[in-house]
Amino acid sequence: MPILGPDGPRAVTVGAALLADTLEAPRVLVDWRPPLERLAPDPAVDVANQTAVERLLAARPRLVAVGAALEVLPGMRPDLLLHSGPPLRWEDASGPMRGALEGALRLEGRDSADLEPCHHHDAVGPMAGVISASMPVLVVEDGETGRRAYSNLNEGLGRVLRYGANDEAVLERLRWMAGALGPDLGRALREGGPVDLVSINQRALQMGDELHNRHRAATSLLFRELALRGLGAESLRFIDGNDYFYLNFAMAAAKLACECAGGVAGSSLVITMARNGTEFGIRVAGAPDRWFTAPAAVPVGLFLGSYTQADANPDIGDSAITETYGLGGFAMAAAPAITRVVGGDARSALAATLEMYEITLAENPNHQIPALDFRGTPTGIDVRRVVETGIRPLINTGIAHREAGVGQVGAGLVRASLEPFLAAHRFLSS
Amino acid sequence: MPILGPDGPRAVTVGAALLADTLEAPRVLVDWRPPLERLAPDPAVDVANQTAVERLLAARPRLVAVGAALEVLPGMRPDLLLHSGPPLRWEDASGPMRGALEGALRLEGRDSADLEPCHHHDAVGPMAGVISASMPVLVVEDGETGRRAYSNLNEGLGRVLRYGANDEAVLERLRWMAGALGPDLGRALREGGPVDLVSINQRALQMGDELHNRHRAATSLLFRELALRGLGAESLRFIDGNDYFYLNFAMAAAKLACECAGGVAGSSLVITMARNGTEFGIRVAGAPDRWFTAPAAVPVGLFLGSYTQADANPDIGDSAITETYGLGGFAMAAAPAITRVVGGDARSALAATLEMYEITLAENPNHQIPALDFRGTPTGIDVRRVVETGIRPLINTGIAHREAGVGQVGAGLVRASLEPFLAAHRFLSS
Repeated sequence: MPILGPDGPRAVTVGAALLADTLEAPRVLVDWRPPLERLAPDPAVDVANQTAVERLLAARPRLVAVGAALEVLPGMRPDLLLHSGPPLRWEDASGPMRGALEGALRLEGRDSADLEPCHHHDAVGPMAGVISASMPVLVVEDGETGRRAYSNLNEGLGRVLRYGANDEAVLERLRWMAGALGPDLGRALREGGPVDLVSINQRALQMGDELHNRHRAATSLLFRELALRGLGAESLRFIDGNDYFYLNFAMAAAKLACECAGGVAGSSLVITMARNGTEFGIRVAGAPDRWFTAPAAVPVGLFLGSYTQADANPDIGDSAITETYGLGGFAMAAAPAITRVVGGDARSALAATLEMYEITLAENPNHQIPALDFRGTPTGIDVRRVVETGIRPLINTGIAHREAGVGQVGAGLVRASLEPFLAAHRFLSS
Repeated sequence: MPILGPDGPRAVTVGAALLADTLEAPRVLVDWRPPLERLAPDPAVDVANQTAVERLLAARPRLVAVGAALEVLPGMRPDLLLHSGPPLRWEDASGPMRGALEGALRLEGRDSADLEPCHHHDAVGPMAGVISASMPVLVVEDGETGRRAYSNLNEGLGRVLRYGANDEAVLERLRWMAGALGPDLGRALREGGPVDLVSINQRALQMGDELHNRHRAATSLLFRELALRGLGAESLRFIDGNDYFYLNFAMAAAKLACECAGGVAGSSLVITMARNGTEFGIRVAGAPDRWFTAPAAVPVGLFLGSYTQADANPDIGDSAITETYGLGGFAMAAAPAITRVVGGDARSALAATLEMYEITLAENPNHQIPALDFRGTPTGIDVRRVVETGIRPLINTGIAHREAGVGQVGAGLVRASLEPFLAAHRFLSS
């Protein structure tokens, strides 16, 4: 059973099957190319982007509730499965996505269901990102606007539904989460009040997390909050056993903040990057109802046990919402230890963050990086800057096996495809 | 009331009253001078040092118990007060030390008591380091040798006994710690088993702690362990309110490891650095029954509120045992956020650790620094290397007000005095 150890993969082999444009893991960190296009200044877009990124930065996500998807998630139905990334048809689903969808059908006791993206329900889910009616969902709310965003709960490492594993042990864990963990979390929040996720993000970034693939600090801080609210012993033990537990909270917080920027006419701010294992897609603030997509690339990274690059599925999951919010690959300078999980070294982790300042609109004052003398993380990807510089957003990510039912095989780095950014730019300029 | 905020001092002024050899905070980080003495190679000392530092590195401190000092601390008596640093007479005690000693007398309902150093009882205490008979004491044990070390429990920030404050609120808190917190911790450890402090140290150093003045990660990890062992809600709330709580555990673990190296004939390994607010002293592995002392220097740093350098007491506390174990000032590269508390910037934090490799015998494989690509912290100060290079160990530290009863006024950096190292070298060479 492939298991990520407490400090990353126990046994590591660097992938041998190589992609055309990412010859080795370190190289994926250097993406400079000649400027693609010189864009004429456009003050109207600048004003729109300023408005949009200010709304993104102003969000104050708080964890307010946990409840069953059917009860708390807008538009949820018993005959609906949500999935990660842009819209997907059953017949286009990759191995791990199919494994997760089939597992969710069995969990719900159904033969079929409609498919819709999590993102169409203000939700996000890591990897396959499958959310079905009975699953417990966490609710994050912006104190100012009352806007809400949602995510499922993290199952832990190894063989889990989000990586496409769907055996009885996986379903049994999901039933326990629906019957015990979710209700316990809901009760603790009702009795103890909301949890400030801005404060947890802020402190975790000063404690070596980048909040996409390293959550040990944030999980510890969330554990403290929940223990003080009287969460039960069994739930606490489950959380203690999984230092990725905070991932889904970080994602929902990021989704909420990004969605606050949606709908600002003319803005070229990216408010979603997401992958369904088949396609990679983005949404932008000036056209939030459209997806701009391209085939998903395959991440390059470090592999568990005897797995190699050849086992890797194309990129999958809504978790790139963390990069969209200036975390994850954009915040690697805060988390040099992440290199043991995704590859690279302390220097390349610093370089990754510094490069992302070239394509972003702001530095988030709530997300300061001590190693950069408390500079805020590069936040708010501007489609125009990506097009001008040719620098593609850097995403760090878990890697699923290509086949259904196997699970996680590694973790690594991937560059967003350029095509959706070019398409979004053409659309906004037309 | 001076309070350290969650991310360091809320209001900061850099000290204006300057010391002869430390003109400003950043400069304290650069200590290069021409070599003092060229020492002839001495293979016998090298062999002794190798043995000594291997014993230090082999220690595996575990938290095994908490109990009243009178019951668990060897040689403790009702008419005895322990204090930090080398031996001290009442009449030589500085303001904060006197404040703490007087508070402890009132706590115990006594008019007088004998004084002995914590270190003479295998114990350590931060700042004034006063331990009296009724105080709860934590017990750390080495799994291999069965050797034990001890520390008191951390009271929190602001007006606390260890900084010399001794009003009724201070004593009331100490009574609650003796009557409620200590017994609750003792019960949790009896029922739930020991806590592995090696593992907490290891993970905390990868989460932005340097384990002398930054303990947010270690306190969070300890909180998790104690919550899982059923620690009571009131105790958990107290720990949650004080991110320095782990300090005393880090100190006891360091004391235990250093003491494991004591008694190796001929070894010039430093096994104690400690200050009592009047004198700074060291002990070495080859002569563990002797103190080599000099007047304590005054730390230079960042001050709370309207306090300035002129308010600072000379250096005080056993907490320099963390530097003796390769933590604190020696591990600042792991904790760039500490610069908000003690001064400097990310670059100087890296430089501090790199400089300490020049005077140490080993790199601790259990104390890896991600920002240095997982190099172990510089561990095991060699008196000979200090004498040869003139590089003085860098200690980061809290700063107490010179007068009894005021409390903490800041935090900063201090260099160990050279004289005790020269004296130890002369003694070992004679």
